[in-house]
Amino acid sequence: MHFTKDRINALDTRTRAHFINSLSGFKSANLIGTQDVQGQTNLSIVSSVIHLGANPPLVGMIIRPHSVARHTFENILQTSVYTINQVNQAIYSQAHQTSARYDRNESEFDATGLTAEYLMDFQAPFVKQSRLKYSVKLVEHQHLAVNGTELVIGEIIDVYVDDNAVEADGFIDLHAIDTVAITGLDSYHTTVKLARLPYAKK
Amino acid sequence: MHFTKDRINALDTRTRAHFINSLSGFKSANLIGTQDVQGQTNLSIVSSVIHLGANPPLVGMIIRPHSVARHTFENILQTSVYTINQVNQAIYSQAHQTSARYDRNESEFDATGLTAEYLMDFQAPFVKQSRLKYSVKLVEHQHLAVNGTELVIGEIIDVYVDDNAVEADGFIDLHAIDTVAITGLDSYHTTVKLARLPYAKK
Repeated sequence: MHFTKDRINALDTRTRAHFINSLSGFKSANLIGTQDVQGQTNLSIVSSVIHLGANPPLVGMIIRPHSVARHTFENILQTSVYTINQVNQAIYSQAHQTSARYDRNESEFDATGLTAEYLMDFQAPFVKQSRLKYSVKLVEHQHLAVNGTELVIGEIIDVYVDDNAVEADGFIDLHAIDTVAITGLDSYHTTVKLARLPYAKK
Repeated sequence: MHFTKDRINALDTRTRAHFINSLSGFKSANLIGTQDVQGQTNLSIVSSVIHLGANPPLVGMIIRPHSVARHTFENILQTSVYTINQVNQAIYSQAHQTSARYDRNESEFDATGLTAEYLMDFQAPFVKQSRLKYSVKLVEHQHLAVNGTELVIGEIIDVYVDDNAVEADGFIDLHAIDTVAITGLDSYHTTVKLARLPYAKK
């Protein structure tokens, strides 16, 4: 099937959103934990978390500042800290529910039954049920004028992960801790390991 | 297990790369097809392709300009066009092999046995074996000074996808076309569908 640019532009907004969101491939599923300066917590599922570099350890995500993730972005600007918590099979329905449009004074932790957890005096809440999570300090955000989104860049500080998942060479077995992947706007997947391939040489 | 920032920084470079690359979660697996103005083709596996927006249809990727992907970046700057081709289970080993350090005058198509295909007179090669692929026009690239990478932003033009994969509401079933996901630097996965969840409401 061939979809031309004109045919894609002619799709209604919701259909185009489903279609275009499928093109990039599998996406990561993460919950972003934040709080404002008064301590009001927020939790938001984000499918745009992306590896930026290992040296220094940096992680990025794309946020739409006027979307349902607006409180997350505002809290990060206020406090400069957040947590990233991988979504696993046991909590993916609750994680998805955080995308509902709750008011600023409602916590998605309370609304979904996920448990806020504070570790090492870090000033943002973790998700207790997540099996791989880390604290992040805001480095900068770049405005993408092309569509009004923000690339939020953070430094990875402390990492908490299930004991059995970290292999000798540093690789973390996300399959073993039931981390899920997202496609499109709303589809969740577990995985089957094909293989780890050796470093490619000519 | 708790990994502090100091403990992470003390890891050797390769171990830290495996570890940090695992933190973002599942990543997309795509082959970027390009050619230079002389028509020399290049193909490069990239795990950083990310959805940026559906209106207009935009796709991003993070490129390290001095890495093995340098020819890809240079070709995109020269010609302003590229293709993105999802990696599926039948070709993931060949796709991984494109990450070897081939010379500028060697084509990864020839080296890996993947087939270059030209569609609709677009001036960049597609991967014939890919079951979801699209032509992209460069919009802009933003330099991320924090670690010297480039965020390459492109407009999605023509999309080619297997007939049976597009559902009535625009969602594309990546599981049905055997698209794979990546974790870390070198681990490949197929998927098992959990569910599509309804739009979340309070």
